[in-house]
Amino acid sequence: MSTSSATLPIGITMGCPAGIGPEIIIKYFQEPPAAQVSAVVIGDIGVLEKTAELLGIPSSMHAWVPGENLHKDHVNVMNCSALSDNLTRPGHPTLASSKAMAAYVDRAISLCLDGHLAGIATCPISKTALNNAGYDFPGHTELLAERTGSSQVAMMMAGNKLRVTLATIHCSLAEIPSLLSKQKLVELIVLTESSLRDDFNLPHPRIGVAGLNPHGGEDCLFGSEEQNIIGPAVQIAADSGIDVSGPYPPDSVFHKAVSGSFDAVVCMYHDQGLIPFKLLHFTDGVNVTLGLPIVRTSVDHGTAYDIAGKGVADCSSLTAAVAMASLISGNRRNRKE
Amino acid sequence: MSTSSATLPIGITMGCPAGIGPEIIIKYFQEPPAAQVSAVVIGDIGVLEKTAELLGIPSSMHAWVPGENLHKDHVNVMNCSALSDNLTRPGHPTLASSKAMAAYVDRAISLCLDGHLAGIATCPISKTALNNAGYDFPGHTELLAERTGSSQVAMMMAGNKLRVTLATIHCSLAEIPSLLSKQKLVELIVLTESSLRDDFNLPHPRIGVAGLNPHGGEDCLFGSEEQNIIGPAVQIAADSGIDVSGPYPPDSVFHKAVSGSFDAVVCMYHDQGLIPFKLLHFTDGVNVTLGLPIVRTSVDHGTAYDIAGKGVADCSSLTAAVAMASLISGNRRNRKE
Repeated sequence: MSTSSATLPIGITMGCPAGIGPEIIIKYFQEPPAAQVSAVVIGDIGVLEKTAELLGIPSSMHAWVPGENLHKDHVNVMNCSALSDNLTRPGHPTLASSKAMAAYVDRAISLCLDGHLAGIATCPISKTALNNAGYDFPGHTELLAERTGSSQVAMMMAGNKLRVTLATIHCSLAEIPSLLSKQKLVELIVLTESSLRDDFNLPHPRIGVAGLNPHGGEDCLFGSEEQNIIGPAVQIAADSGIDVSGPYPPDSVFHKAVSGSFDAVVCMYHDQGLIPFKLLHFTDGVNVTLGLPIVRTSVDHGTAYDIAGKGVADCSSLTAAVAMASLISGNRRNRKE
Repeated sequence: MSTSSATLPIGITMGCPAGIGPEIIIKYFQEPPAAQVSAVVIGDIGVLEKTAELLGIPSSMHAWVPGENLHKDHVNVMNCSALSDNLTRPGHPTLASSKAMAAYVDRAISLCLDGHLAGIATCPISKTALNNAGYDFPGHTELLAERTGSSQVAMMMAGNKLRVTLATIHCSLAEIPSLLSKQKLVELIVLTESSLRDDFNLPHPRIGVAGLNPHGGEDCLFGSEEQNIIGPAVQIAADSGIDVSGPYPPDSVFHKAVSGSFDAVVCMYHDQGLIPFKLLHFTDGVNVTLGLPIVRTSVDHGTAYDIAGKGVADCSSLTAAVAMASLISGNRRNRKE
């Protein structure tokens, strides 16, 4: 191997070939060099070439193989499928494109675990396509957790103004209260603290925990989860030495965080964290998976089949995701050394 | 009466005498004249004088009577209680202070209905104190609705970047789904549209409606309220000629509104609206009551007993509330003329 740990590239998985993944990848490599980090694509050279042609962006591809140095001024691609011969229509995934989509992720995980990549930044996949390809996972995160044997994983949304982690994610609002538990919250606080320390190089991270109910329940007037579940979880985590406090009224904790009181907010549900996060980071937010032995970031948008092939997709989130994967892998490396 | 409709003052109710109301009122009248509108206090001259002394702010009070012109360079106060002889300790409401607190609101309502005030901006009251005073209302809004015979009222939070109205307010998160109904949502959309038109002088208001569940339910994968309740309500309101659309994924609708697509967002619950609102308007947000025959705005904070008497309270929200009451009453007057 000619690559040292310090120069390992980030692997960008191409996501669903019928989504906007190929387009934002081509656009990413058109960014000024200063905005880029060393990265290879785990995907399909033919699809990328066709996409570049469609966009009118001149791109030279190089078929990268693990261990090899990156070819300068080329888009380095680990070629894992050959979908371009059969037309992959934008917005219309096929069985072949879905299987390829899943294979990119599997390959990227192996390359990371084998020491060929510093981390992964994933382009969006479709959950339906994933299931059609025979992968019984709701999404990337669960697939990554299973493949790396990680029992406790969590989702963080990170930007330069705000970081949030989520206690529940894809469930109806009605289900949220029944899904909260003291033990899971303690685990999430611990994962959040570890990530702030190891991934974001914050030696003394401060965490704020949001309540579930308006005004944080106002002394059980509007719900008792703060008193029965969230408060005790915060206490347990604080007793273990973590700088964590709360539960705070949900409508003020994000202002506190943005004003500098907290490095992250632990949120009880998807929209509690995502509403303030997307208000501040609509195009440059990054999804980071906590609890994995490998570094994984993701764009914070979906496959966007409705605009696939139209040339209007924005690569800002991918740019931010690749940069953050590089930052996190650098920080983790420095802590180990 | 020497005052014409166009020069009627806004009435500022003093709120709980043991809270920060008196302090923010004294600070309000210290603001540069350009930041003030014509306003009188419905409260207690003695308490205000003591507060001014405590703050070291020289203030001349004038005992205003309805119909009289305001005295220039004075704080004009309609004196409704005499609490200063018995010490009202900051943070410690008494039965007498609680009864006075409720009486200020009652008096302000009468003055409005009788044509002596252009509108009311309320300082915070304590719900416990209100109940102790023999008023069986959860808060200002319900008291105002009862006294003015208004059957449909709603809460709007308004700022120069974002306006939100709330379908449910002070209930636990678990109760929200059971409190939503198609009919109530249609009524709220209608109230929101009327306010944008009459109060904010927007001839063609555009309203976005938030979903309840993450991603707006994603085709009933995470909840069905979007399909069964919210969507049909939006359709009914749209069919009646209102420019309303949705339900939108809650984590993107506020970005759309702030970017200029909507003049207000109709929200399903307290924190859905208040989290983004307070992130953008932490100190200058105003609470507007829709559906009343009189103009009523409120500061967006509570009595803050913990900091009462310490001189650190911020009057920004009161300044914004008085200005907005004046703006709204002017707009309503212009529409009538």
